[in-house]
Amino acid sequence: MNVEIINTGSELMLGRVLNTHQQWLCRRLADLGHVVTRQVAVADVGKEIQQAVREALSRADLIITTGGLGPTSDDITRELIAELLGKKLIENKDVLAHIESFFAKRNRPRPPKTSVETFVPEGALVFLNQFGTAPGLAMKIGDGSWEMGVGEQNAPSANFHLPSASPKWLVMLPGPPRELRPMFDSSVVPLLKREFADEIFVCRTLRSTGIGESRVQEMVETDLQPLVKLGLEIGYCARPGAVDVRLTASGANAEKIVRDGETVVQKIIGTNIFGFDDDEIENVVVKLLTVHKKTLALAESCTGGLIAHRITNVPGASKVFLGGVVSYANSAKEKFLDVRAENFSAHGAVSEMVAREMAVGAREKFGSDFAIAVTGIAGPSGGTIEKPVGTVFIALASAEKVEVKKMLNPWERETFKQVTSQQALELLRIQLVCA
Amino acid sequence: MNVEIINTGSELMLGRVLNTHQQWLCRRLADLGHVVTRQVAVADVGKEIQQAVREALSRADLIITTGGLGPTSDDITRELIAELLGKKLIENKDVLAHIESFFAKRNRPRPPKTSVETFVPEGALVFLNQFGTAPGLAMKIGDGSWEMGVGEQNAPSANFHLPSASPKWLVMLPGPPRELRPMFDSSVVPLLKREFADEIFVCRTLRSTGIGESRVQEMVETDLQPLVKLGLEIGYCARPGAVDVRLTASGANAEKIVRDGETVVQKIIGTNIFGFDDDEIENVVVKLLTVHKKTLALAESCTGGLIAHRITNVPGASKVFLGGVVSYANSAKEKFLDVRAENFSAHGAVSEMVAREMAVGAREKFGSDFAIAVTGIAGPSGGTIEKPVGTVFIALASAEKVEVKKMLNPWERETFKQVTSQQALELLRIQLVCA
Repeated sequence: MNVEIINTGSELMLGRVLNTHQQWLCRRLADLGHVVTRQVAVADVGKEIQQAVREALSRADLIITTGGLGPTSDDITRELIAELLGKKLIENKDVLAHIESFFAKRNRPRPPKTSVETFVPEGALVFLNQFGTAPGLAMKIGDGSWEMGVGEQNAPSANFHLPSASPKWLVMLPGPPRELRPMFDSSVVPLLKREFADEIFVCRTLRSTGIGESRVQEMVETDLQPLVKLGLEIGYCARPGAVDVRLTASGANAEKIVRDGETVVQKIIGTNIFGFDDDEIENVVVKLLTVHKKTLALAESCTGGLIAHRITNVPGASKVFLGGVVSYANSAKEKFLDVRAENFSAHGAVSEMVAREMAVGAREKFGSDFAIAVTGIAGPSGGTIEKPVGTVFIALASAEKVEVKKMLNPWERETFKQVTSQQALELLRIQLVCA
Repeated sequence: MNVEIINTGSELMLGRVLNTHQQWLCRRLADLGHVVTRQVAVADVGKEIQQAVREALSRADLIITTGGLGPTSDDITRELIAELLGKKLIENKDVLAHIESFFAKRNRPRPPKTSVETFVPEGALVFLNQFGTAPGLAMKIGDGSWEMGVGEQNAPSANFHLPSASPKWLVMLPGPPRELRPMFDSSVVPLLKREFADEIFVCRTLRSTGIGESRVQEMVETDLQPLVKLGLEIGYCARPGAVDVRLTASGANAEKIVRDGETVVQKIIGTNIFGFDDDEIENVVVKLLTVHKKTLALAESCTGGLIAHRITNVPGASKVFLGGVVSYANSAKEKFLDVRAENFSAHGAVSEMVAREMAVGAREKFGSDFAIAVTGIAGPSGGTIEKPVGTVFIALASAEKVEVKKMLNPWERETFKQVTSQQALELLRIQLVCA
């Protein structure tokens, strides 16, 4: 089964927004056993959308488009696809009632522009939008009801083939993620389960930290070879502060092949593996703190609140996370964390001593079991020969001891914060795992 | 001029990673006057990459591929493209010397697997990698030196045309963003300036907050009509807590048409516009604080450090940002911010009174000119009938007054944090602009 995704929107082609649909839809589809074969993004201008849909129809069994269903003048996907398929747009009473009620509930008049959203291609399935006004649409193509559209006349016909034997589905979803995602789960998933046979596909990602990408491969590949012969596919992906090892297989033995592969990798680099699949290190740390019934406080200087932000992205974090101080100014390090002022002149704000006192101070002030402190030079300015940009001290205080690590992360500001926060959370993870 | 981007990597098709190259490259290219016409992502498997490059060669003047140049077994882009173009891979001494020195500087032995990175297609331009080992590559195609590759034999030839008149460039960049980005700026930009004539393209994005997408269009479209007739293109894009209005034009009068459009939009929704183009509200706020010589402190509960993280993403933030407290536990609100304990029972932790005392406490403890405080219910649990999930109080304290706003942001956790932080920063922006 071939699946293609077409994201529309000139804002994508101009680089004004990040395309998050690709990852979200690809992952959801893979979980259902359907690996996306191609993803395309084009501007929301006539020729491009029609051309992309036409090409996808010649290859794919399922095509999902995103965007261009809204009320504004650049929302033209519905019209263009109806034209391509030779379908009339007709008013849908359910959609009209839904939009009327959407605005009535909010005590706002219905903007006249939303009328366009009530017109849908003849014969299309309609998905009402729980979190907005534009409906999603799905059309079965190639079962006899499909006709060549007028848009076709101007097109190069060489790479366009009318689908032959098996019918295809074209699904059109609205652009805003908070509308698209629930609609996919509530409406598209049931459609796929009904229309397409389940395929067995297993994917397992082991997320490691502390070893480089090529070294990881050197360590595991020989022992994985026998499984590769049975159909195991291996992928490696370097991320900020992490290397992912991805094991996939298809078919009846997929589950066993991937599980055996996981056992091999675990045996070789097990202590470096912090999580699996969607795990971020903050989820793992919150889970470990919860299991061990321990609490955490933070004292952040150069990471500027990112560690707290990551921790508080995890639902349930409030049970183990007491809080943190973002002590950007030295005076804040003194007042909130009891760092002694003489340390700043004797050692500098970026020093082992200050990191140590920040961690101890945070642990005492918040009354937590653990406290992490980070102080460093994020750059672009502030570096010296002795302490270049990227220098960072990470301290972890517990009831028993204070551990301090010095790292060098000479990346631009946001990568620096990301990598440093990853290292800080890893320090705590290791201590929790070994406890 | 047609520009296409091809991102390769099975991790993209499985939804394991977010594709950030698309936005970054599209924006950089648009800044140079080249609007990307199509972006494609395919797995790093033979047929797919060759097929995508073949199709792009039939349409585009410039093709940029990302990924698949590294040392591991799934890095096959270089080999596949060389095969498609009928080029031999030959060892490049400069690349070898660069990789040797890369590992020597780090006092690490060179992993044997990196040898594959020293082989480049015959005749290719080589970009040494300042932040990694795999070089970037660029090939001019269609100037006579190009030949049909062996990969071609198995391909459907219908949609592949050998480029005719003007030569094309195929540029291959490594996948990791921290390698790709500096390489693009230092090596690809000079190549483009030399090989392709400048095109005049002007894009201006006005970023607004506080009005919905369709309402924004209704307010501005009539007055923009005369400019649309002159060639102005308008795009609207709804973001968490913001609506972007994008004005673009091409050709000799582009600059004036876009500037006139901006004047029209400013006149109608000027007070709602917080920034332009790449501006995030945190950059605008740090700039305003710097200009007014004012300092800021934060007291965050439900946003969990995100406001501090956003502020500290701005280079130079340390001049105006003193720090913040992430007071997740009530005890932290008491100890660090002097919130009176009786307020928790009388009003609840999520209340106007607690928000007010958090802001006042943060301002006094940090000794700042302004302090922002947020307390709310991020969910998924913790809501009541009176205070449902999404309820949030945002307070802004200054020397003169304390302002508190109650909002309802019933989105999932990460959108909740994003929208709430946006509203909090907007409250401060308005006060700084009106000061």
